[in-house]
Amino acid sequence: MAAHPDDVKRETPDSLRDQLIRAFTKTRSVSDQMAAGLSPEDQNLQSMPDASPIKWHRAHTTWFFETFVLKPLSEEGIQPYESPNDQFAYLFNSYYNGVGAQFPRAQRSLMSRPDTQEVDEYRAAVDGAMHSLLANASEDVLNRLTDRVVLGLNHEQQHQELMVTDLKHAFSFNPIAPAWTKRPDLIGHPTPQAWVPFTGGLKETGHRPEDDVNRLSFHFDNEGPIHKVHLNDYALARRPVTCGEYINFINDGGYENAHLWLSDGWAWRRDQQITAPLYWRLEEGQWYLHTLGCWREVDPEEPICHISFYEATAFALWAGARLPTEHEWENAARVQMGAHVVGHFADSQRFHPSRALEDEVSDLSQLIKMYGDVWEWTASSYAPYPGFKPVAGAIGEYNGKFMANQVVLKGGSCATPAGHVRPSYRNFFYPPDRWQFTGLRLAKDL
Amino acid sequence: MAAHPDDVKRETPDSLRDQLIRAFTKTRSVSDQMAAGLSPEDQNLQSMPDASPIKWHRAHTTWFFETFVLKPLSEEGIQPYESPNDQFAYLFNSYYNGVGAQFPRAQRSLMSRPDTQEVDEYRAAVDGAMHSLLANASEDVLNRLTDRVVLGLNHEQQHQELMVTDLKHAFSFNPIAPAWTKRPDLIGHPTPQAWVPFTGGLKETGHRPEDDVNRLSFHFDNEGPIHKVHLNDYALARRPVTCGEYINFINDGGYENAHLWLSDGWAWRRDQQITAPLYWRLEEGQWYLHTLGCWREVDPEEPICHISFYEATAFALWAGARLPTEHEWENAARVQMGAHVVGHFADSQRFHPSRALEDEVSDLSQLIKMYGDVWEWTASSYAPYPGFKPVAGAIGEYNGKFMANQVVLKGGSCATPAGHVRPSYRNFFYPPDRWQFTGLRLAKDL
Amino acid sequence: MAAHPDDVKRETPDSLRDQLIRAFTKTRSVSDQMAAGLSPEDQNLQSMPDASPIKWHRAHTTWFFETFVLKPLSEEGIQPYESPNDQFAYLFNSYYNGVGAQFPRAQRSLMSRPDTQEVDEYRAAVDGAMHSLLANASEDVLNRLTDRVVLGLNHEQQHQELMVTDLKHAFSFNPIAPAWTKRPDLIGHPTPQAWVPFTGGLKETGHRPEDDVNRLSFHFDNEGPIHKVHLNDYALARRPVTCGEYINFINDGGYENAHLWLSDGWAWRRDQQITAPLYWRLEEGQWYLHTLGCWREVDPEEPICHISFYEATAFALWAGARLPTEHEWENAARVQMGAHVVGHFADSQRFHPSRALEDEVSDLSQLIKMYGDVWEWTASSYAPYPGFKPVAGAIGEYNGKFMANQVVLKGGSCATPAGHVRPSYRNFFYPPDRWQFTGLRLAKDL
Amino acid sequence: MAAHPDDVKRETPDSLRDQLIRAFTKTRSVSDQMAAGLSPEDQNLQSMPDASPIKWHRAHTTWFFETFVLKPLSEEGIQPYESPNDQFAYLFNSYYNGVGAQFPRAQRSLMSRPDTQEVDEYRAAVDGAMHSLLANASEDVLNRLTDRVVLGLNHEQQHQELMVTDLKHAFSFNPIAPAWTKRPDLIGHPTPQAWVPFTGGLKETGHRPEDDVNRLSFHFDNEGPIHKVHLNDYALARRPVTCGEYINFINDGGYENAHLWLSDGWAWRRDQQITAPLYWRLEEGQWYLHTLGCWREVDPEEPICHISFYEATAFALWAGARLPTEHEWENAARVQMGAHVVGHFADSQRFHPSRALEDEVSDLSQLIKMYGDVWEWTASSYAPYPGFKPVAGAIGEYNGKFMANQVVLKGGSCATPAGHVRPSYRNFFYPPDRWQFTGLRLAKDL
Repeated sequence: MAAHPDDVKRETPDSLRDQLIRAFTKTRSVSDQMAAGLSPEDQNLQSMPDASPIKWHRAHTTWFFETFVLKPLSEEGIQPYESPNDQFAYLFNSYYNGVGAQFPRAQRSLMSRPDTQEVDEYRAAVDGAMHSLLANASEDVLNRLTDRVVLGLNHEQQHQELMVTDLKHAFSFNPIAPAWTKRPDLIGHPTPQAWVPFTGGLKETGHRPEDDVNRLSFHFDNEGPIHKVHLNDYALARRPVTCGEYINFINDGGYENAHLWLSDGWAWRRDQQITAPLYWRLEEGQWYLHTLGCWREVDPEEPICHISFYEATAFALWAGARLPTEHEWENAARVQMGAHVVGHFADSQRFHPSRALEDEVSDLSQLIKMYGDVWEWTASSYAPYPGFKPVAGAIGEYNGKFMANQVVLKGGSCATPAGHVRPSYRNFFYPPDRWQFTGLRLAKDL
Repeated sequence: MAAHPDDVKRETPDSLRDQLIRAFTKTRSVSDQMAAGLSPEDQNLQSMPDASPIKWHRAHTTWFFETFVLKPLSEEGIQPYESPNDQFAYLFNSYYNGVGAQFPRAQRSLMSRPDTQEVDEYRAAVDGAMHSLLANASEDVLNRLTDRVVLGLNHEQQHQELMVTDLKHAFSFNPIAPAWTKRPDLIGHPTPQAWVPFTGGLKETGHRPEDDVNRLSFHFDNEGPIHKVHLNDYALARRPVTCGEYINFINDGGYENAHLWLSDGWAWRRDQQITAPLYWRLEEGQWYLHTLGCWREVDPEEPICHISFYEATAFALWAGARLPTEHEWENAARVQMGAHVVGHFADSQRFHPSRALEDEVSDLSQLIKMYGDVWEWTASSYAPYPGFKPVAGAIGEYNGKFMANQVVLKGGSCATPAGHVRPSYRNFFYPPDRWQFTGLRLAKDL
Repeated sequence: MAAHPDDVKRETPDSLRDQLIRAFTKTRSVSDQMAAGLSPEDQNLQSMPDASPIKWHRAHTTWFFETFVLKPLSEEGIQPYESPNDQFAYLFNSYYNGVGAQFPRAQRSLMSRPDTQEVDEYRAAVDGAMHSLLANASEDVLNRLTDRVVLGLNHEQQHQELMVTDLKHAFSFNPIAPAWTKRPDLIGHPTPQAWVPFTGGLKETGHRPEDDVNRLSFHFDNEGPIHKVHLNDYALARRPVTCGEYINFINDGGYENAHLWLSDGWAWRRDQQITAPLYWRLEEGQWYLHTLGCWREVDPEEPICHISFYEATAFALWAGARLPTEHEWENAARVQMGAHVVGHFADSQRFHPSRALEDEVSDLSQLIKMYGDVWEWTASSYAPYPGFKPVAGAIGEYNGKFMANQVVLKGGSCATPAGHVRPSYRNFFYPPDRWQFTGLRLAKDL
Repeated sequence: MAAHPDDVKRETPDSLRDQLIRAFTKTRSVSDQMAAGLSPEDQNLQSMPDASPIKWHRAHTTWFFETFVLKPLSEEGIQPYESPNDQFAYLFNSYYNGVGAQFPRAQRSLMSRPDTQEVDEYRAAVDGAMHSLLANASEDVLNRLTDRVVLGLNHEQQHQELMVTDLKHAFSFNPIAPAWTKRPDLIGHPTPQAWVPFTGGLKETGHRPEDDVNRLSFHFDNEGPIHKVHLNDYALARRPVTCGEYINFINDGGYENAHLWLSDGWAWRRDQQITAPLYWRLEEGQWYLHTLGCWREVDPEEPICHISFYEATAFALWAGARLPTEHEWENAARVQMGAHVVGHFADSQRFHPSRALEDEVSDLSQLIKMYGDVWEWTASSYAPYPGFKPVAGAIGEYNGKFMANQVVLKGGSCATPAGHVRPSYRNFFYPPDRWQFTGLRLAKDL
């Protein structure tokens, strides 16, 4: 069973310095382990402008610490730092207009140099400087650093998830069907679906001070300020929609019935010639899907994923239900805090959603897999919370500027590092995006 | 001074039949008057896929009555009806997938035939049949008809606004600079800007039963259900942003400062090479703009319009403020009901926003031009209200299926027919859209 | 039977002045007659960037006389001339960079104004000025004018052909299937195919002085200089390929056999999803085609047309033959000068190719329809003849600058005015172009 | 000084078997040496659909021997052969429709696997099988094999040139400016330009039997049949156009003067915003260019290269000259056979054109660098010679199907292996193509 996302934070009674060093070491080493089994060519793949090479992710997350921690402190005279290569500041900036020009995103795979080994060395140099800093900085400096370091670690965790999904996308183009992990198994007796009711009224939504259990607890700026929203009574499905349910939608002509679709979704479906989730292929009446382990038959009992917001809304309408709002989702997640609300994360290295099992939970009023397995599309556009103010400076470009045309997803997926999500976490993607592990959980009015 | 939007509805103590006949006659004749001064070529212009020829608008609104009123009643045996041309059902369907295939939208100007005269005859045939029906139908049938007829008239009013904006767009490409109306004057002493405070709390939003003053009162399905929202205290600017204020933004480098823009907006600005509002041109230090009357210099005192959601948000951030949510806007509009909250509508045939004048209103706590002049971008994505259920059948395609990727605008413009808007009215366009008369009013937290 | 293309020139023993006036009057009135049956909307249609509205063609050909004859003579002080509208110089320039900016080609249908009536008046004004000039100019001036006037008339004839093909293209998008002419009949017994041999050796190709029969005789600069080419022995098919032969190619899988296609053609076919000639439609096993008279079944005996260079080469390879070079074609046309070498021209107002009839010609060694009916794709790229020098000045932009990426076609079509073509005439289009009446005649080595 | 292109063939009096083994070993090892200094990521770069990764070139040329030699002989039972990986037949087919489906060209860099090492092993396996075959085959089999093996070697030489130009293109996107070779020097006193006259008349053009000096002599099918062409008297410039001359063209406004450009070229220049040759950059009044050795200042005395056909024609018109036809070029090359007609080839590993030096040749009537340094654009479209028949089968797809829209280039470049070109060699590219080492030599009429 997967760990609770907050476990990591709760187990540490040590000094702030110890906590920081341990967290830094752990998160950084996860990125390196992910790259360990990949060839230089694998690490340099880029299959679309939205995706980036593994090598780039590993350098960019390193650049973050260099740019926002090591260089400013060096300028302050606290610990001298010299970059192994001044051009990296340009090559590995992603979208921070505030810190200079960016290398064109769609051309990242054209950077054969620096090569994998140079990036390894870049990581090692920055890790060394960071360790030295964390070990030797005064308490005062350490306190000042903490927020930035923690932000950098959460930033790296986000990129760890992208490393999984970007690699999966790139491998899907190779007719040789490369494998990275083991074949995801189909085992266990699935648990039935049920509706779980929630009472409406005036609720608080967004990050709460009591969500922070220690000095390394973290939330993004977009999760606040905490504020009131009014909810009607509603129900959530206890588990995510499964592939089997989705196949019923396909077989019932779901992709050909305009009445089920948003207008933009109908056009997207037609222009892109979409007839099934991403990575699905029909062969002699059997659906197969691409995983990071292999091509294998679709398991009807596992959560559906790699669907767009448009597919999610069409499915929900077909099912006589709807998507939950982000506030309904957060309220439900806060009401139910238990073991089974948590599914599988990246730490299992399975990188594929798994069944909700009967013997895990018998209580039909218990929500299952709210966290992990698949990100759940909500009905909510990604917008600032009342009173939201972006952080000043380049770091402030992090979240606020994406608040248009995107949709909020909740809960994390099988590619999300455990400990990275929480009730108030707001992920966001464009309605047609499908290369993340995106699924849905149904909701309805009561 | 412009009439209050609800005046039309309030002045009629007559029978439902009288009311329907009068409303039908008036609305239909407005469309015909708009076409009166335009040549056949003018009426067939289409300058982009989003716009349609005047001739098409005039035929499509006629098709609406034919398809949703005359044909069903003919099938019921109530009043026989035969279409002048069976192919019109295909040619003049817009986006109603439920009633059959559609002629490709971007090719509407390729329909040289039916020509203007045939469309005139089509309108006359449908008007004749409708008048006969309205005059002779039993009370029972009349009652059953009313909602559809009223919907058809509100639908035609929407297209009257599009006739203005689509023609303006098409004329903008003609170096001869054709004129349709008189040159919009610059007269009167402008009134100063000020903040008007509103108290937050739990508010009701959406269409209310008491908004309906008589049997012809109308609202779209997307305006309900009425529901509760929680607002913080806030303030609205008493009048829309002016061109002069917007020029300050331009001159301060607003279009070159990435920090002011949403990420998608920054890309849009760069890809489309946007440096000013639509229809603006800089010549020797003076800004000019295209109106339906002429090219003339920009009046710094008139409301800014033809800006995108992206420009509106960038301006607001530059100004240290933000856009109001649709609920803040509606609440303010309901709190303040007075003469000056209303600006100019299409009935003035000016088709250009006008200054907010000092001698119209001296009370600085009075909102001005909430209705008319320019549609006001809000911060709210266009989404279903809690409990929203689309109307069944083809008519149900009207609003719900557009609830993705678009943004709510409030209040109506100088191209909106008077009586067409109300506090709960929700217009919606895509963030980059600029060919409507779109401006903004600032908001801020208190 | 159609007139020989040179007949017009040969019948005139009159004075140069008489000849010019008669030719000017005749050519200009043909353009006006073509527009007579078309509504203002018809005349303003533009269905692709390569095509132009009828109204534009009529104005542009008028602009030619204004720009290259009337204005220069006015500047010389010979006959005063003032344009009805100075902006027409910009609106109706086509591609002459030398005389100023051009209105964007793809937006010509956005010019609702000047409207049809204004263009009628523009034509009348220029015609009046031209008639006055031709009637009153001194012999010396008349002599100086002649080349430009004759160029203008040949230019207008080219645009008359485009008026036919552009209108046909635009009408093809209208589901009402507008008609302009009568339905083209299928009559007469077809004549069999045969190979006609020609002896090779060193030949002269290009315009010859003896081709000019009088002072109004004309050729474009691209037809010279006359020069020597060496030909091997070869044979030409006596008549163009028919629709029936082409259907055999389709039924034999011609469109699916990569070996028959040029690489660029194979990609074009795939990207454009081409499976038949332009304007063809298969319904229940029967091929139909769009004509300017109606949709009607394909006549297997009439010449194939509306095919691209790629389709022509694939067909020829499938048929075990090849396309002739332009020099083989010209040599054959010069060797055989007789009645049956000539087919139907625009003057018949049929605007559709017609069968080669048995009773027209019994001699199997006689070439049929070398002129008229369909333009014949050759194997020759459009390139300058040795020693070619473009005419200086704006007029010189006429032909030379198109000498890349295009292919030579010979012989004229059913939309070409009689008298416009000749052995040395070189038409040229891009390989994928299909909206002209383009067909082919087979050739082979001996 | 570079070797004559035919030297390799002339020096071998050995047995056919010896010749084949030596030629095979040499050509294959050149490809391997080229890859030796490149990292796996370097070898997997693809910067545009027209270019391919080094790894792909190395595998594809191997695939050629496997598919057209080893597999057919294995099927014949002559020497058993099993491919290391059956999927390579799909992955490494380029454009031979006749031998099965092709992996999409633009996605070749997505093939991270097979990785570089697997491709090394693939090469080794095929080389081993080929050596065994060449060493052990009967004389009869050897004779039958020879044409295919020689074709395969010439095919590999073509890909060696593409390896240079594709890598140069990919490296140009990397701001780190990777180097592969040494910086190309600027040394020696340049020789002056002059016109060299040639007499016209009836000439033979194309491959001649006497061009073949031994059994391994080779020509592509597109070089024949030999045939007669008539030429007027003409002159060629003795050396290619230099960068200095080209800078004069730029400084004289060449890129802004529409009269110098072909119509398609003018549009290309505008749409692509072209203002200089590919890889040129202007910094503070000095032109720099990207080479495989470094960015360095432009040498005014070295041949201009990386220009399109459009730029070549515009330059020639500006210079009061024109491009030679392919027949004029070949005739001149056959008239003058001497040391200085030959420039630098790939064997020098300089991969950059070099100056024509004064002390190399004092005779102003001597053509210089007809071979090597830069490919010379001709005025001739790439078309079949009279009587050309493509070779039957998949091998026949080699040349004939590209005979549309492309232009002939002559003479080879600094990236062409010595011995690969000859008087009748016809290279071909699209008019806008610039990533090859393409330059020009002026011609004029006499």
